[in-house]
Amino acid sequence: MTKTFTRSAGRAANQLRPVRITRNYTVHAEGSVLIEFGATKVLCTASVEERVPPHKRGSGEGWVTAEYGMLPRATHTRGDREAAKGKQSGRTQEIQRLIGRSLRAVFDLALLGERTITLDCDVLQADGGTRTAAITGAFVAARDAVDRLLADGRIAASPIKDAVAAISVGLVDGVPLLDLEYIEDSACDTDMNVVMTGAGGFVELQGTAEGVVFTRDEMSALLDLADKGIGELLELQKQA
Amino acid sequence: MTKTFTRSAGRAANQLRPVRITRNYTVHAEGSVLIEFGATKVLCTASVEERVPPHKRGSGEGWVTAEYGMLPRATHTRGDREAAKGKQSGRTQEIQRLIGRSLRAVFDLALLGERTITLDCDVLQADGGTRTAAITGAFVAARDAVDRLLADGRIAASPIKDAVAAISVGLVDGVPLLDLEYIEDSACDTDMNVVMTGAGGFVELQGTAEGVVFTRDEMSALLDLADKGIGELLELQKQA
Amino acid sequence: MTKTFTRSAGRAANQLRPVRITRNYTVHAEGSVLIEFGATKVLCTASVEERVPPHKRGSGEGWVTAEYGMLPRATHTRGDREAAKGKQSGRTQEIQRLIGRSLRAVFDLALLGERTITLDCDVLQADGGTRTAAITGAFVAARDAVDRLLADGRIAASPIKDAVAAISVGLVDGVPLLDLEYIEDSACDTDMNVVMTGAGGFVELQGTAEGVVFTRDEMSALLDLADKGIGELLELQKQA
Amino acid sequence: MTKTFTRSAGRAANQLRPVRITRNYTVHAEGSVLIEFGATKVLCTASVEERVPPHKRGSGEGWVTAEYGMLPRATHTRGDREAAKGKQSGRTQEIQRLIGRSLRAVFDLALLGERTITLDCDVLQADGGTRTAAITGAFVAARDAVDRLLADGRIAASPIKDAVAAISVGLVDGVPLLDLEYIEDSACDTDMNVVMTGAGGFVELQGTAEGVVFTRDEMSALLDLADKGIGELLELQKQA
Amino acid sequence: MTKTFTRSAGRAANQLRPVRITRNYTVHAEGSVLIEFGATKVLCTASVEERVPPHKRGSGEGWVTAEYGMLPRATHTRGDREAAKGKQSGRTQEIQRLIGRSLRAVFDLALLGERTITLDCDVLQADGGTRTAAITGAFVAARDAVDRLLADGRIAASPIKDAVAAISVGLVDGVPLLDLEYIEDSACDTDMNVVMTGAGGFVELQGTAEGVVFTRDEMSALLDLADKGIGELLELQKQA
Amino acid sequence: MTKTFTRSAGRAANQLRPVRITRNYTVHAEGSVLIEFGATKVLCTASVEERVPPHKRGSGEGWVTAEYGMLPRATHTRGDREAAKGKQSGRTQEIQRLIGRSLRAVFDLALLGERTITLDCDVLQADGGTRTAAITGAFVAARDAVDRLLADGRIAASPIKDAVAAISVGLVDGVPLLDLEYIEDSACDTDMNVVMTGAGGFVELQGTAEGVVFTRDEMSALLDLADKGIGELLELQKQA
Repeated sequence: MTKTFTRSAGRAANQLRPVRITRNYTVHAEGSVLIEFGATKVLCTASVEERVPPHKRGSGEGWVTAEYGMLPRATHTRGDREAAKGKQSGRTQEIQRLIGRSLRAVFDLALLGERTITLDCDVLQADGGTRTAAITGAFVAARDAVDRLLADGRIAASPIKDAVAAISVGLVDGVPLLDLEYIEDSACDTDMNVVMTGAGGFVELQGTAEGVVFTRDEMSALLDLADKGIGELLELQKQA
Repeated sequence: MTKTFTRSAGRAANQLRPVRITRNYTVHAEGSVLIEFGATKVLCTASVEERVPPHKRGSGEGWVTAEYGMLPRATHTRGDREAAKGKQSGRTQEIQRLIGRSLRAVFDLALLGERTITLDCDVLQADGGTRTAAITGAFVAARDAVDRLLADGRIAASPIKDAVAAISVGLVDGVPLLDLEYIEDSACDTDMNVVMTGAGGFVELQGTAEGVVFTRDEMSALLDLADKGIGELLELQKQA
Repeated sequence: MTKTFTRSAGRAANQLRPVRITRNYTVHAEGSVLIEFGATKVLCTASVEERVPPHKRGSGEGWVTAEYGMLPRATHTRGDREAAKGKQSGRTQEIQRLIGRSLRAVFDLALLGERTITLDCDVLQADGGTRTAAITGAFVAARDAVDRLLADGRIAASPIKDAVAAISVGLVDGVPLLDLEYIEDSACDTDMNVVMTGAGGFVELQGTAEGVVFTRDEMSALLDLADKGIGELLELQKQA
Repeated sequence: MTKTFTRSAGRAANQLRPVRITRNYTVHAEGSVLIEFGATKVLCTASVEERVPPHKRGSGEGWVTAEYGMLPRATHTRGDREAAKGKQSGRTQEIQRLIGRSLRAVFDLALLGERTITLDCDVLQADGGTRTAAITGAFVAARDAVDRLLADGRIAASPIKDAVAAISVGLVDGVPLLDLEYIEDSACDTDMNVVMTGAGGFVELQGTAEGVVFTRDEMSALLDLADKGIGELLELQKQA
Repeated sequence: MTKTFTRSAGRAANQLRPVRITRNYTVHAEGSVLIEFGATKVLCTASVEERVPPHKRGSGEGWVTAEYGMLPRATHTRGDREAAKGKQSGRTQEIQRLIGRSLRAVFDLALLGERTITLDCDVLQADGGTRTAAITGAFVAARDAVDRLLADGRIAASPIKDAVAAISVGLVDGVPLLDLEYIEDSACDTDMNVVMTGAGGFVELQGTAEGVVFTRDEMSALLDLADKGIGELLELQKQA
Repeated sequence: MTKTFTRSAGRAANQLRPVRITRNYTVHAEGSVLIEFGATKVLCTASVEERVPPHKRGSGEGWVTAEYGMLPRATHTRGDREAAKGKQSGRTQEIQRLIGRSLRAVFDLALLGERTITLDCDVLQADGGTRTAAITGAFVAARDAVDRLLADGRIAASPIKDAVAAISVGLVDGVPLLDLEYIEDSACDTDMNVVMTGAGGFVELQGTAEGVVFTRDEMSALLDLADKGIGELLELQKQA
């Protein structure tokens, strides 16, 4: 592949943006992580509550769920505040459902017991990849919350079966790129979000063609990139 | 692969359910199609309006969008009526956004001119695969609406660049199956919805692991199945 | 009366449109009826649930209620989807309350026991008379649901005391017409919806003057028409 | 008819409750009337605004509409405040639509010109018959507002074509009663609201059987009563 | 202070408008008071219910809360009906929270027992000072409701510890005025609402500069005025 | 006054918590300030838009408004996300109205021209005093936004007439304290929020007795404290 696309800050096509994971960013939550993918900053908190939603009551199992939000001026131009509009957008709901499913994929809900972990992922600053940063950061916050439950003796064994992380990949002018920033995301032909576990299996895969459809070969190249990126993120999660 | 899974009605793993496409199912809409994937029945209507949403005003371009709904008793047990609850669920919004993106992928919005085609996909009876049936049927309804615009001389050339169809595939007990019905969907480890064009490119790809993660080989097998199924659907669309 | 008004399809002033009642139109509901009054098509399902609303809890009595909806393109021009707008219109609420009262009029709620029958009446195609078709079809769906409860031994005796059906009548250019279709409904001076039981009593009577008020003699002529029409509908219900 | 039913305050079966119409009850509205049917008290204000809803813009015609509300403690036990619940009940919407249609029946909207008269009917105290009191009082408020428009020279001729008033009638233990109060309304087998013009024509007729269906003879007796009552109300409106 | 400002009806700067308190204005509520501050008329009802909100359940304590509303045409130009808009404005919520806190300040919730008193304050006519009239009137309604509880033997001792009343004061063209009417409120530089008890302590103090900030000396003058006005109101409450 | 109350971290009764003002905390907004009052952290962004709300259109004047929110886990226990609930609480609306009024008090809207500055104040971590921190931080963000407008030549002269800052004061066990943290706020008898300008005038004053009423002497002591605290905040704003 001889095509080129110049990325900002001289980044290579298969290179992540600088990733920073700050634990204990706020003090009240059982887990609180600020995760930064370049200029994208998402605050992920994990809150433990001793109750479960109706469909889990009496089941002996717990629940893991997520909510997602974006501060009105996290973006280039101010967006409406969803609380003031009185409803969450379809995009917001899609993302928070994705985060919830991704986290539940690595949880043994029976070991969690009848309690709920809620992962609040709030975007303080957006520059592409907010949902993948959210999943990657939420896992660290969830792990901190579980560690506290273990330390407190409220659970005997960790309900976390594996790690989980996510990254976006995309085709811009036909070039496969890892970890799209906003300007690349806007320009891309195909945008794919990939969620994988520590063991290397896929949890979620969402690819969307914007304008130009993609082929199986292109998808294969994108998955190679994603695999590499997620491997690096899983390592950064461990170090955090 | 030696695993087996017995499907209802003796269906083979790589076999679609009987598909029926009934055009002109209702009389008022510019396009009106009842599509059936086995026991799943979705009424897809295409409505043409001579106005566009704010972000397209004055652009010379049109818009294609979709709305999705399910009658309260389309399912085994009665679900709440979304109009009575006062909001659409996250699932509903996800699906209608997916249908809209899929249809726009094969439209040249400039050739459509400043008008909107709204695809209403209402599920009369559900047995798995409602979103893929909706996309496949909505394309036929959209084509009928475009044909009427052409016949009326309101547009000079068709804005439809290619056909589009969709199918679900999944792994049940490790066996890749084409076109999941409800009981298979509930039991599956991985559920993947694939949207492709007549030319064979991917428009959307959404895979979700439920319980057990999936590998790249499994994904490859699923895509082979989807490719086969969509080829057959595209043929049925042409015949309709 | 020497005035004349030419109806479509050479229909006489006192003639119903062709009525078709299709039972078991969908498979999941305990009762499922597609009723057609000419081009008006309403899908009526009866769902049985083993719980009652708060005002009936502990009373030993059941409840019968109805919900009504119209697919966005059931009509000549597309209407807003109520689920997307986030509320049901006043018209929708009026109609569903009318259907519920009409059905309860022929039910012995004590014999039903503490369970609820919900009648969902969804208009697939509208050409006038949707509320009267809905009541007439909902009764057949309710009867099917009750028959299933009896067959299952969940109730010992039928809670249905009598049949119920409904028809619209109106004055168009001073001529009393039975079973108005849309074009007549739009043009009429008076529109009256009449709900009667098998024994011939009135359950509901709603007459509205649009433009020109109506006299007692006119009302008498309209009630004669309604009586005749409902007699025929009750017969069709029995045959169905 | 030899049946008897003892009414409170020794009222005869065909007797209205004491009716009081107080004009200029509040100072800001163009028309402001407190109407009392016995213990039922409804404040009806008519507000004139120099704009019309979208469907009348540019038509040269005006609009007349109504809104209805009940103070939370207008009733025996406190009801929820609709503003706090975030929506108007189906009952509220039914009533305000009825009031609006009833008033429009006596208005020539072309003579009104492109302006809107909004009739706000707020129940301060309820004891049955709030909707009929509201219609009867709203007409007086509307007339006062029209008189002010005429006095100000904003319209040249009155758009009011006739008077309009309303009363409830019902069968209690088989006895036809005029102007039901709350305790009678709760006990009645049939409840009918009748709206008539000064010329004696029907504008609206809404009869509902509660428990026992009604016959044509019973309806005839009820309409005789209503006719008498409305005649008296029209006289009281003139005196007011 | 040599500045002057001519008030309507020759009112002195430190003079209340004529205040009228009418008890038992409506019949259903346990307490029902129409309070008038000049042309401002607020209907305050106190409703007793034998249940408490969740945060008080099982506590042995009761709750006192308030709701506030304004009839659409209580004002010079018609305002939107909050029930029709589907939400209460921020102003409405601010005011009803203020009324609730003010009343709770003089209640011993333990002596009330596990029951709720809801104070509904509905403005029939507005001319400034609706929130202060509401607090002053609501106290009288609450006292009547408590007296009834005592008379019925449902409580043994009165939970009311002291009286409470409220008045507005403001600076108009630099002149401190007591009990602002609408025209003064619109013109004032500073508007302050003061809530005090019978014993002379402050419950609430809310001062807002509109345009020109205020000094401590000005505030002192305003508090003197408020103190005088509230003293008179407390006396009027006693007489009522 | 000899009473004592031991504050955390050995803080004196008249001492502010450590205050930190971080400008340019996020990159997209025209002004972006993280303000910390001890453990309370509020992100205040100022967004400039070239349009005004309806009531200012064509007036030549601009508008300054504020929105307030709290991340769900900013607090000790997780609160509901307002966007998910579909409405802002009364408390949220009260606070954002207060912030908006406070900022407008120091703005010359004519000099701003027909544009809007929206101040989004989002609480990342709460420990009492979020509204006063928000006002104090929002002023700095607004100043940065205005400086950018000046630098860009979009306005000729600064519309900011004076500085504005806010602090809370309260009586805890009878002791007047400056800048209450959460534990003090929960325990206090009186809580007062004071907003003042650089010139020392009052913009807003909101005092609430919780349990025990307060006297004029106590208020005087509280205002002395507030005056001192706001003086220090104004100095910190200048340094920032």
